[in-house]
Amino acid sequence: MIYLDHAAATPVSKKVLEKMTPYFSELFFNPSSPYLPAKTVREDFEHAKSVIANSIGAKGNDLVITSGATEANALAFTAVSSESRSGGAKILVLETEHASVLESVKRYPFELIKVDRTGLIDLSNLKNKLSENTELISVSLANNELGTIQPLAEIATILKEEKLRRLKNHNTTPLFLHSDASQGLSLLDINVARLGVDLLTLNAAKISGPKGVGALYISHEVRLKPFVNGGGQERGLRAGTENVAGVVGFAAAVEALKNHSASKRKKYMRLVENLKHELEGASIEPVFLGNKKSRLANFLPVSFPGLDAERLIYKLEERGVLVSTGAACAASKGEASHVLKAIGLSSEEIAGSLRISLGVLNTEENVEEAGRIIREVVDSEFERIKNDH
Amino acid sequence: MIYLDHAAATPVSKKVLEKMTPYFSELFFNPSSPYLPAKTVREDFEHAKSVIANSIGAKGNDLVITSGATEANALAFTAVSSESRSGGAKILVLETEHASVLESVKRYPFELIKVDRTGLIDLSNLKNKLSENTELISVSLANNELGTIQPLAEIATILKEEKLRRLKNHNTTPLFLHSDASQGLSLLDINVARLGVDLLTLNAAKISGPKGVGALYISHEVRLKPFVNGGGQERGLRAGTENVAGVVGFAAAVEALKNHSASKRKKYMRLVENLKHELEGASIEPVFLGNKKSRLANFLPVSFPGLDAERLIYKLEERGVLVSTGAACAASKGEASHVLKAIGLSSEEIAGSLRISLGVLNTEENVEEAGRIIREVVDSEFERIKNDH
Repeated sequence: MIYLDHAAATPVSKKVLEKMTPYFSELFFNPSSPYLPAKTVREDFEHAKSVIANSIGAKGNDLVITSGATEANALAFTAVSSESRSGGAKILVLETEHASVLESVKRYPFELIKVDRTGLIDLSNLKNKLSENTELISVSLANNELGTIQPLAEIATILKEEKLRRLKNHNTTPLFLHSDASQGLSLLDINVARLGVDLLTLNAAKISGPKGVGALYISHEVRLKPFVNGGGQERGLRAGTENVAGVVGFAAAVEALKNHSASKRKKYMRLVENLKHELEGASIEPVFLGNKKSRLANFLPVSFPGLDAERLIYKLEERGVLVSTGAACAASKGEASHVLKAIGLSSEEIAGSLRISLGVLNTEENVEEAGRIIREVVDSEFERIKNDH
Repeated sequence: MIYLDHAAATPVSKKVLEKMTPYFSELFFNPSSPYLPAKTVREDFEHAKSVIANSIGAKGNDLVITSGATEANALAFTAVSSESRSGGAKILVLETEHASVLESVKRYPFELIKVDRTGLIDLSNLKNKLSENTELISVSLANNELGTIQPLAEIATILKEEKLRRLKNHNTTPLFLHSDASQGLSLLDINVARLGVDLLTLNAAKISGPKGVGALYISHEVRLKPFVNGGGQERGLRAGTENVAGVVGFAAAVEALKNHSASKRKKYMRLVENLKHELEGASIEPVFLGNKKSRLANFLPVSFPGLDAERLIYKLEERGVLVSTGAACAASKGEASHVLKAIGLSSEEIAGSLRISLGVLNTEENVEEAGRIIREVVDSEFERIKNDH
């Protein structure tokens, strides 16, 4: 089995699981309990939070632990004011955002920002849509279907100019930048100050940490209106007994990323290049998607126009290669990808699109083999269609 | 170390962890991915949900998996309508509910229902407060500080009468019964139909399952307004990639409970009786709290009026006995228990209160030893105070 869908899920590494294990059994105490063994668990939990936070240039207290990226995104949007104001949306989100952003944002007045054909944000469209009422911009660090990396620092600069303008006009409406970094975390060096974000979503499940654990970085200026209240955990922003094992696992996964990013990026770039080269030899010319210069090194989104990606996936699985069409949650509903529509693909191109994402389970050898198999399957599908006509 | 605080946290059993482990590594796939290995994970996940649901007389589809009881409680309250109406609270909650209920309910018009000195619901107070506008009643199955088991079926009967009245008066306002069964699940046989509940909160962490996993049972009549939206998981009621390992662990913990409840209840009743007997020999007469006839078999809430429970906990810990004063999350904030206030304890009684809760880590021998140690510590604290005067 050759797994080429690391954007959908990643296996928890042995090392990460080893770190988690004691917190299920011996160190099972409630971190809020008054005796020393529980206080030690509390310290371990807070330390794990610090490790995660430090990796993005923040402090443990700047993070709120959630049950994953989806919840973190929903929590981020509570930063907007509840007053109803006329004219101009409160939130601007990129049209290619993940469903957890696009669905969450529906409870607020929002507008979509356009992308170009490579999935990059259209900065002039952002500038046009920015109004005096805009309170929050949400742009993912890297798109989950294309791997396109957004120029967050440039966006932050535009927002800074708008903030200066507001200061001059005595407009006290806040303006925050939120980014879902679920896909970016595994390979990019993230620093919240350098990116200029006020809110950042993280996800353990995409970096060989456990599922069901995420975090929201929150800058000091932002005030949230939490929807899960109770025992006051996470500074009152997210109540509930802490998932200690999960957060310890998240931290261990973050630690494992450190110092490896640069070499891993190089490795994936080479593997992706080889794969591309192999696919270019197929009998249908592949259309490579996303932005060549600004794309996650492990992503290779590709379309074989005229072929049916669902059939390809099935045929590839028969040969032991696992890939997907787009976001797993969207794919399971059988809907055409809103991301591929947004970048202007034809319905034929969308129907023939695969998302290939490399990761820890890939080696030079298995990617080479996968490339051969994909090419063969594409060729035989092409033959089949030709004969049908 | 003798652990007497199973109401705060329970260790994940070896068997449960063994069942979870494969889902971290080999079976790590995203349940929404299109290939067979992922579909198998989806099936395992749905099967685990069925096991949990069946244990309370429900179907897998009736459950929404959450990150714990606190989130499940918050989600339950979204059952109330959003229209603003004058007169009468929409929600009635017991004054002794857990903070996750009392804090969540604050965003709706609500009123508190009184309890008697044993922590049992005052049914006449419930009847008095029931108005034509009441949409939801929230009463925990068993209180987390006292172990008092509430007569849910009787409450359901009162609600049924009210519903008949409304039917006659052409009042279409719905009326739902919610119960937080976090503490009750470990020892009580729960059946949603028999209890007459429309919404029921479950918690893996209190039954030797993992932390960070809970569930909300939802009857077919209830419509919720979820606050975590996205990829459409959990029938659109709770988006986010599923915490497969956690839910498999939850199911394994539920399985382990089955058929053991009756014998475990007997065991704990015997241990609690012995413990009581030992404590009655202390130089300060203990006041046993909660309801003798309707109390979780593993609970022994007790007050030593005149003593300082915080000191007791500390001294007991020095001797290797771990107990708490009340809910861990409340205790960590140093607030006097709202539960003990509600049952009418004097401040002296509250200050001297311990919550003893037995569980899997207890044996006849270690409970006997703990009893001796508690008695000795109480005696020596009493001596200290006497000499101070």
